[in-house]
Amino acid sequence: MASEALHPARADLETRASDDHHLALKVWLRLLACTTRIEREVRARLRAEFETTLPRFDLMAQLERAPEGLTMSELSRRLMVTGGNVTGITDMLEAEDLVARVDHPTDRRAYTVKLTPGGRRVFAKMAAAHERWIVQLLGGLGAQEQDHLYRTLARLKQHLNARPPTATKDAAR
Amino acid sequence: MASEALHPARADLETRASDDHHLALKVWLRLLACTTRIEREVRARLRAEFETTLPRFDLMAQLERAPEGLTMSELSRRLMVTGGNVTGITDMLEAEDLVARVDHPTDRRAYTVKLTPGGRRVFAKMAAAHERWIVQLLGGLGAQEQDHLYRTLARLKQHLNARPPTATKDAAR
Repeated sequence: MASEALHPARADLETRASDDHHLALKVWLRLLACTTRIEREVRARLRAEFETTLPRFDLMAQLERAPEGLTMSELSRRLMVTGGNVTGITDMLEAEDLVARVDHPTDRRAYTVKLTPGGRRVFAKMAAAHERWIVQLLGGLGAQEQDHLYRTLARLKQHLNARPPTATKDAAR
Repeated sequence: MASEALHPARADLETRASDDHHLALKVWLRLLACTTRIEREVRARLRAEFETTLPRFDLMAQLERAPEGLTMSELSRRLMVTGGNVTGITDMLEAEDLVARVDHPTDRRAYTVKLTPGGRRVFAKMAAAHERWIVQLLGGLGAQEQDHLYRTLARLKQHLNARPPTATKDAAR
């Protein structure tokens, strides 16, 4: 407890795993602990250095990869959040001239969302910083270890994709 | 796009990584994609099979490990969420007789939260199911691979814990 009080970041979900638990559960709780820790750090730095949030960064990242623009439903699907959130974030980014809604090329009732030239410049700076942070945060692993981890996670992902997800009405995190 | 439309779960954050990105960034996006995918599945199954949520499950898991009970601030710290959320979840679990607030043994102005006998029974069932799900979801990796992954993540975690986190006012996910 004393150690946790001094280092609150060390009190994490992994404390749940005790020795008699199955290896898979121990792996999962450690995976979750590492991911949560890195994600929190990224959120904190986006806020501290760019006064922005991870959902905003993720939305701009998707647009950066789609110069032709994306419809709101495409954005929602790629971001795995509810349409309402995507609309709210898009509204805020549009108010800051970072994204723009433009007419859909074929469906005149719809529109697509694109980064503005200014949004593209802002995102490029954030993306470069984000990559530096990740390189630093994952720096505890050498290139060979990272490469091995990458391939291990590929097999995990393949296994996860091989079965249909449990239906849920609540797709948002 | 056609594949994504048919299998929305395959559209994930990892699509952000392109070949010219740094290895660390690719590892991170895959780590995030796998973790998000497993967490979503756990949330969906908790809802479908037990009509409960991950925050409720996590709170009960912390109490199960602390038979002597936890104060609200200890619970908040262990769950890495804001005190407000912990209070709300505790209220709901108390209304269902799954947890109880009891007088703190030494501080008479405070109280601790414990699982009730009924809460302990309900949690035991959920925990057993949760472990089965995780064994199944991680089944794409053999025991040796899981063990290697576990040790790799230990080094990653050690590295993450070695540096102080960026200060943030928003500690909630």
